[in-house]
Amino acid sequence: METSRLTVYGDRRSGNCYKVQLVLALLAKEHEWVDIDILAGDTKTPDFLQKNPNGKIPLLALPAGQFLWESNAIINFLAAGTPLLPTDAFALAKVQQWQFFEQYSHEPFIAVARFINKYLGLPESRRAEYEAKQVGGYKALEVMEQQLSRTPFLVGGQCTTADIALYGYTPVAHEGGFELTSFPAIQRWISRVASLPGFVPMD
Amino acid sequence: METSRLTVYGDRRSGNCYKVQLVLALLAKEHEWVDIDILAGDTKTPDFLQKNPNGKIPLLALPAGQFLWESNAIINFLAAGTPLLPTDAFALAKVQQWQFFEQYSHEPFIAVARFINKYLGLPESRRAEYEAKQVGGYKALEVMEQQLSRTPFLVGGQCTTADIALYGYTPVAHEGGFELTSFPAIQRWISRVASLPGFVPMD
Ligand SMILES: N[C@@H](CCC(=O)N[C@@H](CS)C(=O)NCC(=O)O)C(=O)O
Ligand SMILES: N[C@@H](CCC(=O)N[C@@H](CS)C(=O)NCC(=O)O)C(=O)O
Repeated sequence: METSRLTVYGDRRSGNCYKVQLVLALLAKEHEWVDIDILAGDTKTPDFLQKNPNGKIPLLALPAGQFLWESNAIINFLAAGTPLLPTDAFALAKVQQWQFFEQYSHEPFIAVARFINKYLGLPESRRAEYEAKQVGGYKALEVMEQQLSRTPFLVGGQCTTADIALYGYTPVAHEGGFELTSFPAIQRWISRVASLPGFVPMD
Repeated sequence: METSRLTVYGDRRSGNCYKVQLVLALLAKEHEWVDIDILAGDTKTPDFLQKNPNGKIPLLALPAGQFLWESNAIINFLAAGTPLLPTDAFALAKVQQWQFFEQYSHEPFIAVARFINKYLGLPESRRAEYEAKQVGGYKALEVMEQQLSRTPFLVGGQCTTADIALYGYTPVAHEGGFELTSFPAIQRWISRVASLPGFVPMD
């Protein structure tokens, strides 16, 4: 039915968009996917900016016509009322803690290093920035490793949207120059997420 | 009573810590405040890193001994069950949207430009970085201005933790070189937050 349709605007090769794709797959939620090409300027058109004035993907459109942006806000909204989002107040706070950590201390290093390396081909002009990203990226991986050597998922025994948020870029961290060999708990966690029913890999 | 005590580790001159101070003040919640000096290395001691492996303030300690870090996760946890945090699913998602926007598209530009200018005295070696931060910072202010010219607070008619998150650094944006004169809606919003019962300004 048209009125129950969710629409996602995104690019599946972007980890931030993949988070949304992955949650929809794990929850087997019907939706429409509209491919957006950042490099073609799709996020800067007047039409897109009316939907998200910050000009970024992913973007979720609800059947009633409202829009929601920011990947982690979208996945929490989609997961509300399902086992992917705890209802206990402290567990819910911990989910958010890891998601803010992801956006502030993980993504800006690992996703950006990956972008410079994989999409721009590591040009000489950005090598210093790329090198600088390595420090922060490895620091973030160490923080994850510490938690994942204690609990199977970031907020305990069950997969939550905290794991989905960090799963956006961690499995492709090597494309940003990050070796995961010295992070055995992260590696086991990657397999654990990948074996969840409904799991889909990044395109 | 000792067992009902919340403890905050922070530095009141940091906007991320001020968010926590402000929510506690608006909610008139008793707590203990432990001053942390980043420059003295207080966040890198083994004792602190056991509380927050990411080595950052603010940090919240609960009476039962658990720890919560990330400013926006902390303020949402403190505000749960109060008018500062909506219970409607979409409104709650919008609160998170603005908070992730704050951490990704606002704080890294405005707070960092302020730090370079106010605390480091705008050294020549960081001038290029400072200039680069101006573009992203003004873009974030424009996104806020657009919303605040439509609704009194970021998620409608009431103050939520989305406003508190953005209030961390917006009123001190001029210390990072950002003129607010061309953002009348932001200016009115600043006065609106500052006149809430219980409000405290940043140290
Ligand atoms: N904090 C945002 C980041 C989203 C983001 O950076 N999206 C990129 C693609 S991965 C984008 O749209 N870039 C276009 C631009 O910034 O102009 C989120 O988590 O959704
Ligand atoms: N995303 C974090 C950022 C916290 C943050 O950057 N805190 C600064 C003070 S404002 C800090 O502790 N810096 C010390 C460091 O990074 O070593 C939050 O919102 O809590």
